[in-house]
Amino acid sequence: MRIGIDLGGTFIKGGIVNDANEIVVKKAVPTEVKKGPAGVIENMLGLVGALLDEMQGGAASLQGIGIGSPGTVDDHTGRVLYSNNFNWENVDLAGAFTQRFGCAVKVSNDANCAALGEMLSDKEKSGSAVLLTLGTGVGSGIISGGKLYPGDNPGGAELGHMVIRSGGRLCSCGRRGCLESYASATALIESAREAAALYPDSELAILADKNDLNGKTITDAVRKGDSGAITVFDAYLDALGEGIVNVINIFRPDVIYLGGGVCESFDLMEDKLNAFAEKYAFGGDKALVARIKKASGGNDAGIIGAAGLLL
Amino acid sequence: MRIGIDLGGTFIKGGIVNDANEIVVKKAVPTEVKKGPAGVIENMLGLVGALLDEMQGGAASLQGIGIGSPGTVDDHTGRVLYSNNFNWENVDLAGAFTQRFGCAVKVSNDANCAALGEMLSDKEKSGSAVLLTLGTGVGSGIISGGKLYPGDNPGGAELGHMVIRSGGRLCSCGRRGCLESYASATALIESAREAAALYPDSELAILADKNDLNGKTITDAVRKGDSGAITVFDAYLDALGEGIVNVINIFRPDVIYLGGGVCESFDLMEDKLNAFAEKYAFGGDKALVARIKKASGGNDAGIIGAAGLLL
Repeated sequence: MRIGIDLGGTFIKGGIVNDANEIVVKKAVPTEVKKGPAGVIENMLGLVGALLDEMQGGAASLQGIGIGSPGTVDDHTGRVLYSNNFNWENVDLAGAFTQRFGCAVKVSNDANCAALGEMLSDKEKSGSAVLLTLGTGVGSGIISGGKLYPGDNPGGAELGHMVIRSGGRLCSCGRRGCLESYASATALIESAREAAALYPDSELAILADKNDLNGKTITDAVRKGDSGAITVFDAYLDALGEGIVNVINIFRPDVIYLGGGVCESFDLMEDKLNAFAEKYAFGGDKALVARIKKASGGNDAGIIGAAGLLL
Repeated sequence: MRIGIDLGGTFIKGGIVNDANEIVVKKAVPTEVKKGPAGVIENMLGLVGALLDEMQGGAASLQGIGIGSPGTVDDHTGRVLYSNNFNWENVDLAGAFTQRFGCAVKVSNDANCAALGEMLSDKEKSGSAVLLTLGTGVGSGIISGGKLYPGDNPGGAELGHMVIRSGGRLCSCGRRGCLESYASATALIESAREAAALYPDSELAILADKNDLNGKTITDAVRKGDSGAITVFDAYLDALGEGIVNVINIFRPDVIYLGGGVCESFDLMEDKLNAFAEKYAFGGDKALVARIKKASGGNDAGIIGAAGLLL
């Protein structure tokens, strides 16, 4: 049995994961970021302790602990080099767990763990996959040759920070035109707000007035046939498609998983994105074009993937 | 001893490569693309035969043959799936060599082999590197974890076909705004031609009139302080810099090698590109930013890298 921990901004979620990559026990505790690294680690250690209490055979049957953390992680040392959200710098996560539990401990970025979890949970076993999560930002994880690929040095696998429109929108990372600044949920809302000003008769203008623009309301407007919303969403899918085709031309994965809130409307996205990829991927029909699938998502992928770091 | 073959459009170059990844004997024969796959393969087989004649211990001491080919290669089967320049489809290169010589045979894309050759020839041994060759197009090869990474399926590692300016210049691959359409030597010349029309007093206008715009004459004009040429070359470096920072954010390699004719003027490129990468790479000074180095280039890297496929 392995334990997987998904360290989130509000909750720390953990689970006991069996050899079939299924969660057999799941628990969560508040993160309490304000307590700083030592306090958060204490909460994480407590969660692992509570999971161990329910593990068949107890600590003796624990094969190891895997942790998915926000920020830039050094996968080799298990340190969080930097997390903007947590305001952490150089936090030795692996060390704290090794010291307490004396078992193997692996740490990676949370998006990496989510990608690994998606692959491990997918019944169609594929050895290569890329996950893009379309949320506040664009997170990403890369599975290559059946293994997580976090980049050759820390700070890699950041597909959200691949520029697709040089000189375009300012991204939180300081560059202009990153995929994140066009394909995140935040970016969709920003585009809708811009369109609301341009098209005052649009449903988007009504939503903007009510301060109610979000992924759900925008895609609802698309379903209603609102032309402003359709224009915005088509442009959103084009930008996302550019990012996806870049990923295909670089990694040629079997599958691309899309996750995050926007994918609640995956039915509005799937056909257009697959057609875009088939049209524009390098080599046309002479090379494999990844299938674009909706990520199963949820916390389970993060926990299963974190535990999967030990495989 | 291994044999490495670099299959080019005009010449087939081959060498005997020793355990120190040095070429001990080198030979070349014309490719004769017009003879079709069977004729070209016969020329390649003849070249290998001539190399074997000079190998100490003869064929008995041959550990294997590695081949770098243009086009989309299936590294697992050793087939050239498609080569636009050669007008080849599904050519079983590995099979022809295995049949004749009965030894291990590996085939990969020529840019992949060049990247592997650069890494193997570099005295500063690094386990991760990306090569971008700035020529007619933008070729690329990726070394990750000490090994060549050709993509998880054939047709990957095509960094030149990563869109950096969505909706921009039309690329030969059918997309708009690929790195190749801004960072190849061809693109530099196109930009200079556009600028020549806009700035009739520029040195570029004189060169355009003489039909003498090329990487050398453009960078010579930069050295002379011609403002039109400086503007064009600065924009060229910005686009190349975007591609390089994308590569850093994705792969976090130790080194990025730049090759191809434009890099004859690497002294005009090095400082600006390194500064661009340090300014814009994700994570700033909290994560490693690859050094940008000039590729040693030449045919030797292609031969050494092809032989390196057997390592």
